[in-house]
Amino acid sequence: MALAERLFPICRSITGPGVRETLSILQEEFPGLKVASVPSGTRVFDWTVPREWEIRDAWVETPDGRRIIDFRDSNLHVVGYSVPVDAVVPREELLQHLYVQEDQPDVIPYVTSYYKERWGFCCTRRLRDSLPEGNYRVHIDSRLFDGELNYGEILLPGREEKEVMFSTYICHPSMANNELSGPIVALELAKWLAAQPHRRYSYRFVFIPETIGSITYLSRHLEELQRKVVAGFNITCIGDPAHFSYVASPYGDNLADRVAQHVLRALDPDFKTYSFLERGSDERQYCSPRVNLPFCCLCRSKFEEYPEYHTSADNLDFITEEALQGSVAMLKEVVSVLEHNRVYRVTVPCEPQLGPRGLYPTISRRDTFDQVKAVRNLLAYADGRSDLLAISDRIGVPVRDLIPLVEKLGDLLEVCN
Amino acid sequence: MALAERLFPICRSITGPGVRETLSILQEEFPGLKVASVPSGTRVFDWTVPREWEIRDAWVETPDGRRIIDFRDSNLHVVGYSVPVDAVVPREELLQHLYVQEDQPDVIPYVTSYYKERWGFCCTRRLRDSLPEGNYRVHIDSRLFDGELNYGEILLPGREEKEVMFSTYICHPSMANNELSGPIVALELAKWLAAQPHRRYSYRFVFIPETIGSITYLSRHLEELQRKVVAGFNITCIGDPAHFSYVASPYGDNLADRVAQHVLRALDPDFKTYSFLERGSDERQYCSPRVNLPFCCLCRSKFEEYPEYHTSADNLDFITEEALQGSVAMLKEVVSVLEHNRVYRVTVPCEPQLGPRGLYPTISRRDTFDQVKAVRNLLAYADGRSDLLAISDRIGVPVRDLIPLVEKLGDLLEVCN
Amino acid sequence: MALAERLFPICRSITGPGVRETLSILQEEFPGLKVASVPSGTRVFDWTVPREWEIRDAWVETPDGRRIIDFRDSNLHVVGYSVPVDAVVPREELLQHLYVQEDQPDVIPYVTSYYKERWGFCCTRRLRDSLPEGNYRVHIDSRLFDGELNYGEILLPGREEKEVMFSTYICHPSMANNELSGPIVALELAKWLAAQPHRRYSYRFVFIPETIGSITYLSRHLEELQRKVVAGFNITCIGDPAHFSYVASPYGDNLADRVAQHVLRALDPDFKTYSFLERGSDERQYCSPRVNLPFCCLCRSKFEEYPEYHTSADNLDFITEEALQGSVAMLKEVVSVLEHNRVYRVTVPCEPQLGPRGLYPTISRRDTFDQVKAVRNLLAYADGRSDLLAISDRIGVPVRDLIPLVEKLGDLLEVCN
Repeated sequence: MALAERLFPICRSITGPGVRETLSILQEEFPGLKVASVPSGTRVFDWTVPREWEIRDAWVETPDGRRIIDFRDSNLHVVGYSVPVDAVVPREELLQHLYVQEDQPDVIPYVTSYYKERWGFCCTRRLRDSLPEGNYRVHIDSRLFDGELNYGEILLPGREEKEVMFSTYICHPSMANNELSGPIVALELAKWLAAQPHRRYSYRFVFIPETIGSITYLSRHLEELQRKVVAGFNITCIGDPAHFSYVASPYGDNLADRVAQHVLRALDPDFKTYSFLERGSDERQYCSPRVNLPFCCLCRSKFEEYPEYHTSADNLDFITEEALQGSVAMLKEVVSVLEHNRVYRVTVPCEPQLGPRGLYPTISRRDTFDQVKAVRNLLAYADGRSDLLAISDRIGVPVRDLIPLVEKLGDLLEVCN
Repeated sequence: MALAERLFPICRSITGPGVRETLSILQEEFPGLKVASVPSGTRVFDWTVPREWEIRDAWVETPDGRRIIDFRDSNLHVVGYSVPVDAVVPREELLQHLYVQEDQPDVIPYVTSYYKERWGFCCTRRLRDSLPEGNYRVHIDSRLFDGELNYGEILLPGREEKEVMFSTYICHPSMANNELSGPIVALELAKWLAAQPHRRYSYRFVFIPETIGSITYLSRHLEELQRKVVAGFNITCIGDPAHFSYVASPYGDNLADRVAQHVLRALDPDFKTYSFLERGSDERQYCSPRVNLPFCCLCRSKFEEYPEYHTSADNLDFITEEALQGSVAMLKEVVSVLEHNRVYRVTVPCEPQLGPRGLYPTISRRDTFDQVKAVRNLLAYADGRSDLLAISDRIGVPVRDLIPLVEKLGDLLEVCN
Repeated sequence: MALAERLFPICRSITGPGVRETLSILQEEFPGLKVASVPSGTRVFDWTVPREWEIRDAWVETPDGRRIIDFRDSNLHVVGYSVPVDAVVPREELLQHLYVQEDQPDVIPYVTSYYKERWGFCCTRRLRDSLPEGNYRVHIDSRLFDGELNYGEILLPGREEKEVMFSTYICHPSMANNELSGPIVALELAKWLAAQPHRRYSYRFVFIPETIGSITYLSRHLEELQRKVVAGFNITCIGDPAHFSYVASPYGDNLADRVAQHVLRALDPDFKTYSFLERGSDERQYCSPRVNLPFCCLCRSKFEEYPEYHTSADNLDFITEEALQGSVAMLKEVVSVLEHNRVYRVTVPCEPQLGPRGLYPTISRRDTFDQVKAVRNLLAYADGRSDLLAISDRIGVPVRDLIPLVEKLGDLLEVCN
């Protein structure tokens, strides 16, 4: 939450000083984070890196000189990527540049216009509805110029070159769940992973502007990612105290899907599943046909599905320390399952003797029985065909409970993959 | 309906002048239709082309000289393929040669005896039950002789040698749904197809006597059909104003099955599906193991499933112009889906820009959203794995709505098959 | 039942004279049965053949010299594999060596301690609860020594080297359903099979001590069994008059699973299916990953699922002649389905003529129709892809009803496997 409070006031967009300031704070927290920059105008697949946007000030004054909308009060007040303007306009014209959330009278909506030149302000519906006739002074001191697009990247090498990837974004101004929760949770996970001495997989974290950032990143790393990534997760809207949500990949059957479903089923049986038809964030790019990385998307209240989404109500009160910690714990579990998910094969024909190997512990009767049963079922399906996730689903024991059993079984199991 | 009225009175059977007269009328309507003839006695797989049957007159007279059954009133009065007879028989013997529909007192059933020599009459149950004792004169002036079996064929070449095939039959005497609706609808579809300038597939229509006709046709064209036909449809009982029916192929999963299900789901969600176990028409031959063509069968009220089936009540009042037109429209849709059903692959990695390509149309808000969503989903699944039918089923948008989108997407899509 | 009565009193265990006496009686009934012996101490996979156990006498006397527990009354009174003891112990110590069925006051439980040296007695709960304070004399005259493990084997050669295998066990003392029913039913089946002149498959029956016996047998025959066995069945608890039960293999899809399900569905639609997670008998060894034989397990009241299981209440009153005969009949049906289960392909394109082949029998209308329908459906799916079991399931006609039709069809069908 401390990091959230520090990052909250910054005015981020898909480019500009706000992104750089944010990345620089993340870098303070995790010095291994590298910041990259790509010049405006660079061709990235079907797209072009846009001009950089800088905003210094913006306000609207009433006919009698009262400043009723002020960027310094909330950076949501100005439409993202607004071109500069300084004019006096009649109320009717002003209204065409004013955006409100029609179904919520007291919130400021979040609006952007990246790919069409526009200027505009956002305010509460209540304010807009109270504006009297007259001429209003509108002022936006912004600049669109050839600059750069920035993103951050953390690479943690493991024993294998194969990678697990986490992607999150840093292009939203003062909103908390969408999208400070993603980078904060991802950074915390990266810290924990960096402290693990024996990583099987390598880990890649990217902190990018949404859409144009993932497209830019993919345009520079596509072949490498296709070669290395075994499972990837887009992390977003993951700080509020709601149930988890999961957005499936196009066919819902890659390793990321399987791990996500498994972990959520064990931790939060009431989690929500969305099909890829309900996607909306960077999984759109990672799972696009010619990219085809094994990604899915993890959230709590999914984007577009909660009333505070893309409004000033998505503030620091909407997220909680406990929810952020819970999300980090869930992702640690995802990592743990991935690290241990192998295809095993029992090394002896027939059931092995369990007694001499201490696999009939003499604690409470019921526990013993369940654990012996789990050991036997694990051995029965350790047939070189199924990975631990598949065995787990078949025998009804979570992977996390199988991991210590695999260790106890020692050389009764061999790894097949 | 005009054509139906013209064809209705003709006494058709699996061979004979009635079939030739019918084919000649179809030829008037579509001069490209070719008539073939195969001599009686020709071996066709496990069968032999039967002798030709000619019927000139047939009647039954009461003891007091009243003509109570007369072929001139209805050609259903005589059992198909009856051998000639001219005799005076007591009532008891007559009854052994009289066929009625026991559950419907006022209709004449349709009965044939192709493969066992017999003579017989059909009449209403009411008439039979009123016959007094006495001697009756029975008279059938028919002839069975070595002649020929006839069928009609229309071939419409397309850009590809691969073919779509439609089969329907012309062996039933005066009944309307079964079986004038089939040839009439097929002929109308052939006319429409002949007028299409850019056919992808070639099209084959056959107008044959049921069973022995399809066996004969297959015995002459099997290898060619196995090489060329991508989807085939047996068309029968398709002129009454009931919901559509579909009889699946043995495994229900060929291209004809997929298209038929797709089109019926979109046009008539209450259509009925029958398994191949409920087959009964020429799909029996087309789908037999060593023929194995990708056929299914399309009807409205399926054969054997309506009370008027194979009786004099299946008359011109039972079919409607609107139902015939609707069936033609349904088959045009089948053709359209087949013509456009390709495996596509998007040509750029990541989502392409839609704005600059005019794919964010500025009509009504709701429509726009749905169309943009459909475009995005189409692109998301244009992965070189799925044909348009599979994409359509996955994203919940009918193929006909995807066709214009495919065209708009232009070189963003490439064809993989 | 006569055989059951003769075998019942013998005190069997996993080794020892009781097993040999039992095998020798089975040999009297079926002279082709071979008895094998494996020395104690032989390494069998992860296990070692245990010492032989011989028991001569065992009793408990009250402080006043009354013999309250006597091995001669029931061989369940002594814990299997008890070491010898002859001592006077206070009631408290005795109680630590007394086993009862807590939930059933009047039965003697069946308890063994093969792999931990122990002595102990089993008695009714009612008796234990009535024991006064005082010193009791305990006496077990048993011997554990390097001897041998014995099992029986019947091999019936067929036209093919491929085998069907039946496994059952002979290591339980005086209990009837578990486990005299298994060997009795298996022996009866072997007699019937030996009398069949034209066996397609070879047949193997093994009569073994449970667990260590199947492990021992597999350690000596694994490669051969993996090469030959097409379907195997563990037969146990199959003599009581309850519905049949079936314990599936790990994936539930081998030939033994398919036949078992098919036959039980036809004979006893209320049969119970258990997953491999509920296994418990020698299917544990036969289906273990590195053995991987196509086995399943067939029972009536499944082991562990009936209150009389492993108690003195599982006596000769618990099984019936009729149930034993019914089990034999069920297994004959299993054999018959296996013998006839082939992949067929129709030899002519299109439907063949049925009339000239007498496949339109002229018995009762309804029967005729169903049989003609079955013939047609059999021909429609005799496509070289599906075996008779698969066709049967698809067309809804039991294999036993298809077998005579296959014979009638003669050279219209060819065998593809």
